[in-house]
Amino acid sequence: MGRILCAGLGPGDPDLISVRADRAIRSARHVAYFRKAGRAGQARRIVEGMLAEGVTEHAMEYPVTTEIPFDSPDYIRLLADFYDDWTLRLEALAQSGAEVVVLCEGDPFFYGSFMHLYTRLKDRVPVEVIPGIPGMVGCWHASGLPVTWGDDVLSVLMGTLPEAEMVSHMRGADALAIMKTGRNLPKVRRALEAAGRLDQAWLIERGTMPDQRIARLAEVEAADCPYFAIVLVHGQGRRPVSGGPE
Amino acid sequence: MGRILCAGLGPGDPDLISVRADRAIRSARHVAYFRKAGRAGQARRIVEGMLAEGVTEHAMEYPVTTEIPFDSPDYIRLLADFYDDWTLRLEALAQSGAEVVVLCEGDPFFYGSFMHLYTRLKDRVPVEVIPGIPGMVGCWHASGLPVTWGDDVLSVLMGTLPEAEMVSHMRGADALAIMKTGRNLPKVRRALEAAGRLDQAWLIERGTMPDQRIARLAEVEAADCPYFAIVLVHGQGRRPVSGGPE
Ligand SMILES: C[S@@+](CC[C@H](N)C(=O)[O-])C[C@H]1O[C@@H](n2cnc3c(N)ncnc32)[C@H](O)[C@@H]1O
Ligand SMILES: C[S@@+](CC[C@H](N)C(=O)[O-])C[C@H]1O[C@@H](n2cnc3c(N)ncnc32)[C@H](O)[C@@H]1O
Repeated sequence: MGRILCAGLGPGDPDLISVRADRAIRSARHVAYFRKAGRAGQARRIVEGMLAEGVTEHAMEYPVTTEIPFDSPDYIRLLADFYDDWTLRLEALAQSGAEVVVLCEGDPFFYGSFMHLYTRLKDRVPVEVIPGIPGMVGCWHASGLPVTWGDDVLSVLMGTLPEAEMVSHMRGADALAIMKTGRNLPKVRRALEAAGRLDQAWLIERGTMPDQRIARLAEVEAADCPYFAIVLVHGQGRRPVSGGPE
Repeated sequence: MGRILCAGLGPGDPDLISVRADRAIRSARHVAYFRKAGRAGQARRIVEGMLAEGVTEHAMEYPVTTEIPFDSPDYIRLLADFYDDWTLRLEALAQSGAEVVVLCEGDPFFYGSFMHLYTRLKDRVPVEVIPGIPGMVGCWHASGLPVTWGDDVLSVLMGTLPEAEMVSHMRGADALAIMKTGRNLPKVRRALEAAGRLDQAWLIERGTMPDQRIARLAEVEAADCPYFAIVLVHGQGRRPVSGGPE
């Protein structure tokens, strides 16, 4: 019996992969990764130059979606079929004795697509998951500023949330990380403005990747924002010099 | 001119240190780390066996605090003096040409003590910070369950927060990570109960460390909880099969 080993890749810089994941990736004979059809895929790009010769690559291409909206029942069904299908394929590989290293951006258990394979696979074949540095951590390092101090509350929000809910969370927390910005950037910006926090917000595109970009959100043209982008509001610390020992 | 290099150590398992931090730690000639007086220190413990021969160790011992409460102005002043003092010492080392690797649990920019040195040092000597996997990420992996799906909101709370504020954040978010539990565990537990979420909560002590312990919070005797402990509530996913491509 082989197994499935999911390796968290961290925010993008391959030097930020954990020692354990680095070892697994370099010695892998099978790697699998998600990507959009026709794209290289961010996960595959991160490990460029790290894969052993003769490795077998399994590109798990998301179903194409030009006609149906992402949140429609039809697309949700398509996606469930896609995960079911890859569950069977990975299971068969593991049953045949192979170890398959599944590459996942950031941390696999933090809003990661692999979780949909994990829940399906975990009672059928051995599955191990190696944590990674979440993308948002890379982004606050890219900004050069600590994100939380003392008693600060950090809330992590998705750009796909309804606007009113977003505003209320933006009002309630000290520090914010807003993921899945992309096409949702105009909504995120309006919500921050409504919550009175737009002037504190930074947009970090492709944090720790070669083409990283950082800007104050208020100064950004909301025109096009890549998928790998996070809006950050740094906490200021509820108590001045806390953070010390307990 | 030397420099200060802060290395994020991740949750505890040395195999989860990033490739870059691992390299910096193994080649360091000077390492510094925070600890309580009379204790080995968690950061130092994580790198046991990794340090080069002849390395100079600088143990930065928090001021002793048996008589004054941690949140009193007196203790805050003591702590500020302590950070000022170590700023001068590290600055002098860097000025003399040394590179000092400061070891920090988890991610240094996420509620880390190093941030107090960072703000003081960064305009005086070169300072570089290497991200790490936050302790909470190690804890949700220890639990074996993904923490957030789809549109889930994750809120990170400190056990030191006032109880009423804690309750309101616990009601508002889908997933929760509550840090600095330790002596605050009874308060955290009451707050979760008031928010109707105690039955979903897990207590993870020393996640990914050799003596890791996981339990349902409702079944734990609130008697003694270590400093390295996190209470987790996993998100259930706002939309069933989302998390797919944008
Ligand atoms: C489906 S989530 C996956 C998150 C991933 N598992 C993690 O731990 O970061 C994808 C979102 O992560 C964020 N993201 C991940 N890495 C990033 C990076 N290096 N720079 C900017 N955003 C990033 C973006 O907001 C993107 O829309
Ligand atoms: C001052 S904060 C530092 C956080 C650290 N910079 C990080 O990124 O995790 C200390 C708190 O982190 C949490 N923590 C860090 N690592 C942990 C681990 N491996 N297991 C449980 N709790 C941990 C505990 O709640 C502890 O009280």
